[in-house]
Amino acid sequence: MQSTDVDVIVIGAGPAGENVAGRVVRGGLSCAVVEEHLAGGECSYYACIPSKALLRPMELAAEVRRVPGLELGPVDPAAVLARRDEAVSGLNDGGQVDWIEKLPATLLRGRGRLAGPRLVDVTALDGTVTRLRARHAVVLATGSVPVLPPVPGLAEARPWLSRDATTVRRVPARLAVLGGGVVACEMGQALHALGARETTLLVRGSGLLGRMEPFAGDLLADSMRAAGIDVRLGAEVTRVERDADPVVVHLADGSAIEADELLVATGRRPAVDDLGLEAVGLADGGPVRVDDSMRVPGVDWLYAVGDLNGRNLLTHMGKYQARVCGDVVVARAKGRPDDLPALRDTSDGRGAPQVVFTDPQVCAVGRTEHAARADGFDVRTVEYDLGRVSGAYLRGDGYTGRAKAVIDERRRVLLGVTFAGPAVAELLHAATVAVTAEVPLDTLWHAVPAFPTVSEIWLRLLEEYGL
Amino acid sequence: MQSTDVDVIVIGAGPAGENVAGRVVRGGLSCAVVEEHLAGGECSYYACIPSKALLRPMELAAEVRRVPGLELGPVDPAAVLARRDEAVSGLNDGGQVDWIEKLPATLLRGRGRLAGPRLVDVTALDGTVTRLRARHAVVLATGSVPVLPPVPGLAEARPWLSRDATTVRRVPARLAVLGGGVVACEMGQALHALGARETTLLVRGSGLLGRMEPFAGDLLADSMRAAGIDVRLGAEVTRVERDADPVVVHLADGSAIEADELLVATGRRPAVDDLGLEAVGLADGGPVRVDDSMRVPGVDWLYAVGDLNGRNLLTHMGKYQARVCGDVVVARAKGRPDDLPALRDTSDGRGAPQVVFTDPQVCAVGRTEHAARADGFDVRTVEYDLGRVSGAYLRGDGYTGRAKAVIDERRRVLLGVTFAGPAVAELLHAATVAVTAEVPLDTLWHAVPAFPTVSEIWLRLLEEYGL
Repeated sequence: MQSTDVDVIVIGAGPAGENVAGRVVRGGLSCAVVEEHLAGGECSYYACIPSKALLRPMELAAEVRRVPGLELGPVDPAAVLARRDEAVSGLNDGGQVDWIEKLPATLLRGRGRLAGPRLVDVTALDGTVTRLRARHAVVLATGSVPVLPPVPGLAEARPWLSRDATTVRRVPARLAVLGGGVVACEMGQALHALGARETTLLVRGSGLLGRMEPFAGDLLADSMRAAGIDVRLGAEVTRVERDADPVVVHLADGSAIEADELLVATGRRPAVDDLGLEAVGLADGGPVRVDDSMRVPGVDWLYAVGDLNGRNLLTHMGKYQARVCGDVVVARAKGRPDDLPALRDTSDGRGAPQVVFTDPQVCAVGRTEHAARADGFDVRTVEYDLGRVSGAYLRGDGYTGRAKAVIDERRRVLLGVTFAGPAVAELLHAATVAVTAEVPLDTLWHAVPAFPTVSEIWLRLLEEYGL
Repeated sequence: MQSTDVDVIVIGAGPAGENVAGRVVRGGLSCAVVEEHLAGGECSYYACIPSKALLRPMELAAEVRRVPGLELGPVDPAAVLARRDEAVSGLNDGGQVDWIEKLPATLLRGRGRLAGPRLVDVTALDGTVTRLRARHAVVLATGSVPVLPPVPGLAEARPWLSRDATTVRRVPARLAVLGGGVVACEMGQALHALGARETTLLVRGSGLLGRMEPFAGDLLADSMRAAGIDVRLGAEVTRVERDADPVVVHLADGSAIEADELLVATGRRPAVDDLGLEAVGLADGGPVRVDDSMRVPGVDWLYAVGDLNGRNLLTHMGKYQARVCGDVVVARAKGRPDDLPALRDTSDGRGAPQVVFTDPQVCAVGRTEHAARADGFDVRTVEYDLGRVSGAYLRGDGYTGRAKAVIDERRRVLLGVTFAGPAVAELLHAATVAVTAEVPLDTLWHAVPAFPTVSEIWLRLLEEYGL
C-alpha cells in the first residue's frame, strides 16, 4: 500500500483534535486530520452548543420572573428549537471544514485506525483505505461515547441518549431521565421547560451532581422540584419495558413510571473501539493513558487528548490538552526544549473548572472539601449565602444561591471554590485564576470586587474566613 | 462643655464609615458614628442601589430581545419604581441603624465637626451640641457632593442632580442630560427606558466614559443611539433658560434643546464643607489627602476614607479603604505592628475596578493603555471581539462587545483589562485578581476558562498575545 507522509496525523476533528491541528500548523508542521463524522465534533453539534442553546431561554425566563415590571409571554418552543438548529449550523460542518483547510491542514473523511508505528489507515465511507505515515506524531482525539447501564430491557426500549435530547424535534410530554449528572440535569430541565410537563429524574445516588459539593446538588434539586420536576433520589431501576409506547420504568421499591421517552444519561466512556490500539501494543478498552505532555508512555510518537485520555470529560480541558500537545509536538519535532511550563498539563489534576447550565447554575473549580481532605490537605472551608450579596438582590427577588471556598490552611491558598445560583457561570473564572495561580488569601484581600456585583461574594468569603 | 470619651469617632455613616465602625469594634475598640442624614449613605439610598434597581429591567429586557422564543410585554415603570423603593427601604435607614447598634457602636444623629485635636462636636437637628473626644482616632467619611458647572442660568433652572434621577417618581418625557460619565450614561439610559422618549446627552468631551478605554464609550454611544437616545459629543452648553417649563439648553453651535427636565451629572467634589478642617490646621476645600494607611499626614489621630479623600469615588474602594483604616487604627491603638500588607491601601493606585451598568455594560480594572504609557511601562495591548466567543453567541443574537488587555511586556503581567458588552459585569473580578496579584501571563495560560462561557475571552486574549 502506498502511504502519504505528513508531519502530524490527528484522528478526530472535535474541539481537541482541531486545536492540535491549529497549534502544530502554527508551529510549522504539516497536518492531516481524520474525521469519520462531523468536523467540530460532539460538542459543536450534539453536546455543549445545542444544550446551551436550549437552556438559555429557560435561564432568561427565570431571571425575568424575578424582576418586577417585566412580563414574559409563554416560551415558543419552535423558535427555541430553530435557534438551536442555527447554533449547530443545521448539523452541517462546512464552517469547520473551511477552518481546518484554511489552517492549512488536510481533512480526510473516514475512520482512522492505527496500523503500526506512525501509521494510520483511513477507511472512507466507500471502503477505500488510505494509509498515512506521520513523520513526528499521531494524536488520538476520538472523544467518548455514552454508556448504557446493564438494566434488563433497557437497550431494547430504544432509550434516548444525550444526542437524542439535544437534537430533539418533538418534545415528549412525559419524560423519564435516568441519571443525576450534568447531562441528566441540564436536559431534564431544558426539556421540561420546552414542554415535557411530566419529567421524572431517576437518580441512583443520594444527590444530584454527585462529584460536586453536596449543597450544589441540593439547591438544584430544590429548584427542579419547585418547577414541578419529580426528582427521585436513591432510585434503583430494575427493569425497563417498551412493548409498545409508552416506556415503563420499574423501580426496586415496586413503583413504575410511564413515560413517552426515557433519556439515559449515566456516563460516557472513551471512544477506543476499533482504533487499532492493539497494533501498537496497547490494550483495547479503557482510556488511553498519557503523561502530562499528552504522550502515551512507551510510545514516543503517540499522543491522546480530550475525553479519550480520561483526564476530564470537558471540552475546554480537551482544548487545553490540545494546546499543550500541539506545542510539545512542535517542540520535539524541532528539537527545542520540550519541558517549558506551557508544555505540560498542570490543570487537569487539581480539579478542572466546570459550569453546569442549569437553573440555578452550578460551577466549581479545584477540589471539593471531600477531595481536599482525601488528598491530605489541612482544610478549612467557608460558605456564604449568595442571596445576601447586594448584587444578587439587585438581579432579582428571591435570588437563592450559595458559595463555598476550600482553603489550604498551611499555605493560605484556595484549593477549590463552588458557586450555585442564578447566572453564576461567569463568576467562576476569578476562582480558576486564584486556584491556578495559588494566589494567597492575603493578596486576594486586595482584589476588591466592584459594588454592586455578585462578585462581592469574594469579599464576604474572605471576611468569613477572618480577614 | 462636657465631653464623652470613645476610642474611635467616625463622621459619616455611609458604606465607608460603617465599615470602619465594623472593623474597629471587631478589633475591640469602642466607636461612635456621627451621621447627619441617613445611615447607609448616598450609595444605599441615592446612588448605586437605586440606579441599579432602575437599570436591571432595562438590561434584562435587552437580553430577552436577543433570544428567540421569548416575548416580552412593555416594561411597567410603576413596578420598576416600586422595586427601586423597596431596594432603598423607602429611604428609611432603620436596618442600617440596627446594624450599627448591634456592632455595637453608638450612632449620633447630627452634623459632626472637628473642634480640635481628637475632638468632634455633633450638632443635632434641634441645635444641641454634644462634644465627643476620641482616645485613638477620628475618621472622616463624609463622602462627596455633586458639582454644577459654571453655566449661566444653570443653577437658576432648578436642574436635576443625580439624586433627583435615582429617586424619580414621574419620568419626564423629554430629558436633557449634561455629562458623559457614569451617572449621565446610566441614568440617561434608565430614564429613557422608563419613558423619557426624547433623551439627549450633552457631552463636552469627544466620547462617553472619558476615563476608560475609548472603545468602551464608542460601543455605548452606538447602543444609545440605536435605542433612540440623541448623543451629542463635543457639546458646549453656553446658557440655560427656565422661565417657565420647559427648560431650554443653548449650545455653542447655536442650537437649543427643550426638555422637561435637565439632569446635571458632571462630577462630584469631596464633602468637606463645614467639617472643621481648619480647627486642626488643614486647608478647607479639596480632598482630605491621606497616606496609604488612610491617615492624614502630620495629624496622627486623623483619618479619611471614601470619596472624601479623593482616591477613587467608588463605593467598593471606600469600603476597602475603610477595612484598611479600621484595622490599622486597631493595630495602632493596641500597639501592634501597623505595617502588615493588609494595613496598606495598595489597590487604589493601580486603577480601581469599576463597573458601569449601562447597556452594554462596561467594566475595567487597572490602567488603560493611555495611562500605562503615561506611567512609562513597556506596553503591549491585545483586543478581541467578544461577540466571536461561543459563550457570547449563546447568550443571544447580535451580541456586540469587545475586550482589551494592557500588558507590561517586561514582566509579562496584565496592567489593565477592559470589557464592554452585555452582562460583562461579573467578568471583571477575574481581571481584578490577575491585575492585583500580578499573575504572569504564562500562569494565566493554565487558568482554563470553562466552555462555553463568555469568560473564554481570556483564552482568546492570550492566544492573540501569542501564547
